[in-house]
Amino acid sequence: MDQLYSSALLEKAVNEFAKLPGIGGKTAMRLVLHLLRQDASAVESFGQALVTLKHDVKYCAVCHNISDTEVCGICADNRRDHTTVCVVENIQDVMAIENTQQYKGVYHVLGGVISPMDGVGPSDLQIQSLVGRVAEGGIREVILALSPTMEGDTTNFYIYRKLENAGVRITVIARGVAQNDELQYTDEVTLGRSIVNRVVFTGKL
Amino acid sequence: MDQLYSSALLEKAVNEFAKLPGIGGKTAMRLVLHLLRQDASAVESFGQALVTLKHDVKYCAVCHNISDTEVCGICADNRRDHTTVCVVENIQDVMAIENTQQYKGVYHVLGGVISPMDGVGPSDLQIQSLVGRVAEGGIREVILALSPTMEGDTTNFYIYRKLENAGVRITVIARGVAQNDELQYTDEVTLGRSIVNRVVFTGKL
Repeated sequence: MDQLYSSALLEKAVNEFAKLPGIGGKTAMRLVLHLLRQDASAVESFGQALVTLKHDVKYCAVCHNISDTEVCGICADNRRDHTTVCVVENIQDVMAIENTQQYKGVYHVLGGVISPMDGVGPSDLQIQSLVGRVAEGGIREVILALSPTMEGDTTNFYIYRKLENAGVRITVIARGVAQNDELQYTDEVTLGRSIVNRVVFTGKL
Repeated sequence: MDQLYSSALLEKAVNEFAKLPGIGGKTAMRLVLHLLRQDASAVESFGQALVTLKHDVKYCAVCHNISDTEVCGICADNRRDHTTVCVVENIQDVMAIENTQQYKGVYHVLGGVISPMDGVGPSDLQIQSLVGRVAEGGIREVILALSPTMEGDTTNFYIYRKLENAGVRITVIARGVAQNDELQYTDEVTLGRSIVNRVVFTGKL
């Protein structure tokens, strides 16, 4: 729709917001008008936070997680188990796993998964640097924690091939029915697999 | 949920986004990571557009629409009918009506509707300046184009009281079933009203 803006400044701000994924024209307008109602200092702070982030952000030299320092807080933490490396797609996955408080090892952020449809090949990801980390020694287990999708599985398999003779244990996170899922709505692949891969019940889950 | 960010800069940018209405933490993260993948110049342009807008934006001295100039393009346009003023809640409504290409008069942007629940009273809106515009003369018709809600109707009634002796024709936009609405799903107030307020059909809609 050819919108008729009464202000070129407004139009520019709305168009910038509308470039963001999942933000349509109407939402962009609503967000911009919300910002207009805030103090100038709040808007300044918003704009500055983005510019500063882009300008100053670093990626951990070891695991490629976003970091304010050369090596991220997790990789620099001696209390973590540096012999176990969990391979994830992106930094949201690191945060999700950290939030479980169930993992005390370190990470390796690939920056995506292999996806020929999207033009993402192995060389676009931090796979070679993972192979390098393993080759340096000191790593006993590599946990593949990618999404259970076709792209995730392709990437799992590719990494497996690269590491199978590297002398490390290669594991993959468990798949099955999710906590609180209703069985009748669970897809048949997941459900079938959860039956085939059933585990001995010891009175504790 | 207590998110564990690996970067304070990242956390700040995400928190700024998450302050926006309708943007939760996960969406904020997704948007920030999207911006991080863009060129520095694109992020700079985004931040700058917001700061510039907030700093330089003006409101039309006549109709209170957002404008880059003292008087907006519509109010300054001699081809528009300045004897007809359409009263709307906000600038999105101006844009929506302009997009219909059915209106050639001018506008008056209230900046909201009377809503005691939200602490918005008549003095918070541009109602006095509307009364002033009418008192100056030259206006023949005031069209009330507020949302057909309780707050919109309260505001319609308040403005009606203020203008009923001002010697202008006061009209309100038509209410009835919307184009392409399915009758069976139309609410009963709208449907009942559309029957009571039926118009003579001349073979043309």
